[in-house]
Amino acid sequence: MDSKTIMKDITSKAKRGAASLAVMKTKDKNKVLLAMAESLDRSRAGIKKANAIDLKNAEEKGRNKAFLDRLKMDDKRIDGMCKMMRDVSKLQDPVGEVLEKRERPNGLIIEKVRVPIGVIGIIYEARPNVTADCVALCLKSGNSVILRGGSEAINSNKAIYAALKEASAKCRLDEGAFILIEDTSRQLVEEMLKSTGGIDLIMPRGGESLIREVVEKSQVPVIKHYKGICHVYVDADADLAMAEEISYNAKVQRPGVCNAMETMLVHEKIAREFLPRIAERLKEAGVQLKGCSESRHILGDGVQEATEEDFATEWLDLVLNIRVVDSLQEAISHITKFGSNHSDAIVTENASSAKEFTKHVDSAAVYVNASTRFTDGGEFGKGAEIGISTDKLHARGPMGLEELCTYKYIVHGAGQIRT
Amino acid sequence: MDSKTIMKDITSKAKRGAASLAVMKTKDKNKVLLAMAESLDRSRAGIKKANAIDLKNAEEKGRNKAFLDRLKMDDKRIDGMCKMMRDVSKLQDPVGEVLEKRERPNGLIIEKVRVPIGVIGIIYEARPNVTADCVALCLKSGNSVILRGGSEAINSNKAIYAALKEASAKCRLDEGAFILIEDTSRQLVEEMLKSTGGIDLIMPRGGESLIREVVEKSQVPVIKHYKGICHVYVDADADLAMAEEISYNAKVQRPGVCNAMETMLVHEKIAREFLPRIAERLKEAGVQLKGCSESRHILGDGVQEATEEDFATEWLDLVLNIRVVDSLQEAISHITKFGSNHSDAIVTENASSAKEFTKHVDSAAVYVNASTRFTDGGEFGKGAEIGISTDKLHARGPMGLEELCTYKYIVHGAGQIRT
Repeated sequence: MDSKTIMKDITSKAKRGAASLAVMKTKDKNKVLLAMAESLDRSRAGIKKANAIDLKNAEEKGRNKAFLDRLKMDDKRIDGMCKMMRDVSKLQDPVGEVLEKRERPNGLIIEKVRVPIGVIGIIYEARPNVTADCVALCLKSGNSVILRGGSEAINSNKAIYAALKEASAKCRLDEGAFILIEDTSRQLVEEMLKSTGGIDLIMPRGGESLIREVVEKSQVPVIKHYKGICHVYVDADADLAMAEEISYNAKVQRPGVCNAMETMLVHEKIAREFLPRIAERLKEAGVQLKGCSESRHILGDGVQEATEEDFATEWLDLVLNIRVVDSLQEAISHITKFGSNHSDAIVTENASSAKEFTKHVDSAAVYVNASTRFTDGGEFGKGAEIGISTDKLHARGPMGLEELCTYKYIVHGAGQIRT
Repeated sequence: MDSKTIMKDITSKAKRGAASLAVMKTKDKNKVLLAMAESLDRSRAGIKKANAIDLKNAEEKGRNKAFLDRLKMDDKRIDGMCKMMRDVSKLQDPVGEVLEKRERPNGLIIEKVRVPIGVIGIIYEARPNVTADCVALCLKSGNSVILRGGSEAINSNKAIYAALKEASAKCRLDEGAFILIEDTSRQLVEEMLKSTGGIDLIMPRGGESLIREVVEKSQVPVIKHYKGICHVYVDADADLAMAEEISYNAKVQRPGVCNAMETMLVHEKIAREFLPRIAERLKEAGVQLKGCSESRHILGDGVQEATEEDFATEWLDLVLNIRVVDSLQEAISHITKFGSNHSDAIVTENASSAKEFTKHVDSAAVYVNASTRFTDGGEFGKGAEIGISTDKLHARGPMGLEELCTYKYIVHGAGQIRT
């Protein structure tokens, strides 16, 4: 069979799966999730064995440590998947919630009701736990899901998938509810991206180049974030002790993630007092500093010059750009120019500066006196997340169960006609 | 200048316009809308003169009556534009509304606040009043708009645009708030569709072929509806008098619009009683009937055979497909196969059939005992609409001011860091 036919077959199954999931009772969905947790637990030997093959292949290819770490499936990570399944079973079912209800003068009652999106396509790289995460979240939100993981995690993905399928078959879940594409050829991905009518939404998860390719080629709507170039702006009226803690946390606590700070902006009025304090702590933590001329003047020659390109770079590492700005306005302009509309923070005790910042900074999450690291489904109280969106349509920021839904209008009448 | 440079210049201006509109006060936006109404009123002679040129050109090209009617700008339509401006000035400003607010256990206060989307691109055909509609709705919702109307309405569009610009200049609105692309070449449209980063959302308005082309080529997110193949299903438990009124209204009241009925599904139990009654009225109104074998058996040879292709056709005219079904299930299956996820209705006195129908029919608007013709921003209480979406992402059904907005999270802390 050619790729087109294969994909058509997959999307037909997924559409039937979606129709069945859309009307499934909450307690039945939860039953499947719990069965999946058990099945993953029982299958841990097989998962680890399959993962060992992937790890060996990746090592032979000379993949770096960070890659191997993302790929690895040990007991702790398998425990994590089982716990996630149970956690998702406890979350509130978003489907069927009445979001709005209005009665019109002619007596029509218009309800806006939350419903699943339909068929979700996930294109991801080498993190096998994404397989289980996406199945759990799509299932609970009533969507079917087509999973296309990277070739380098294929053995791990197949083992996890087999465990999930065992549980779902036992619960008589429609076989189209979740489908792993085991053929990792490019042709199938390209067919996937052309499947308008078959797939309602594609979410790419991985490096920026993967995401750019998906956006460029896809005719199916895509929600994504390319990267997180997050800023902390330390205002003239900041509590400097607080600013120090927030900046340190935003950079150091987990530098390899999208909500970590990449650039610190400091108001010139407090730069001489603040910069030496924070720089010392950051250097102790092994952070390499890159600064504008003013910050280098204050901090000395140990700080490399930050170029325009540096300010536009997502380091995902212990590297930090520093810039001294002459005003709140200049901080906002810098963020508008170099930011990625992800997460940006101001540290200030001045309420009107805070308001100005939150009004003008056009990011999914704008913080006043808190670390950018909080942009996360769990931290936002959503229980889990399927990704973070820096898009402006449909959903922004952390996407949980509610964001995997759309709505429809249900209109009740008593014979009304339009005149 | 090449198309790429021209479009870059336009989107830069529009981005500045969007930044300015996003923080504009409601009363200032309303002032501009009222000034625009006055200016349109004063410019009516010029608009009609420009429109006469477009009409003459279109006639010479042999355009049909429906086309000429859409293109025409008479006093009544100009009055309509002025009224629309005033109506939109009275609508509630959606920007800044707090949609959700939650306090997390760590004390973070997370607000989900409605904000404009940014830069909206509209690609439309030969209805000049779309120019004014889109400017009004985008302005009130805090978005800037780039308008690319069809070449055949260019003189009318330019005259309307000039009137709107006169008013906005007087009110010192940012010049990037709304921009008409006066060059109607294809190259500029293609650049528009590649303007990721410059345009946040494109809405094509016009025939299905225009919309398909936009979706195929666009890298910018698109919201649209291709067509409306709307159904009325007359259930075994219908009030037949009500069913007659609703079906007649859905087909005849305004057949050329997307929420008109194209196919009537009738339960076999009541087909013999119901079909002759409604068929007679429809025929009197000049409706051409196309039927399945069962309905032709009941109605006689005057009814042409309806093919699979007929059931998949949006007639936009006094033509109706009829099919007798043996169950509610068969009606739902027919709609799932041939429908366009726009608007579909059931007529029934049976509450459980109604529930089954609204649950399984996957359309933007699902009606119980009312005409599909109500799918409209005004009828839904939104005051106005910029279009109707049959997409599932971001917005479904009639799109008004709220649907031209997205949200952002504003998080207030007291120094919280992540551990």
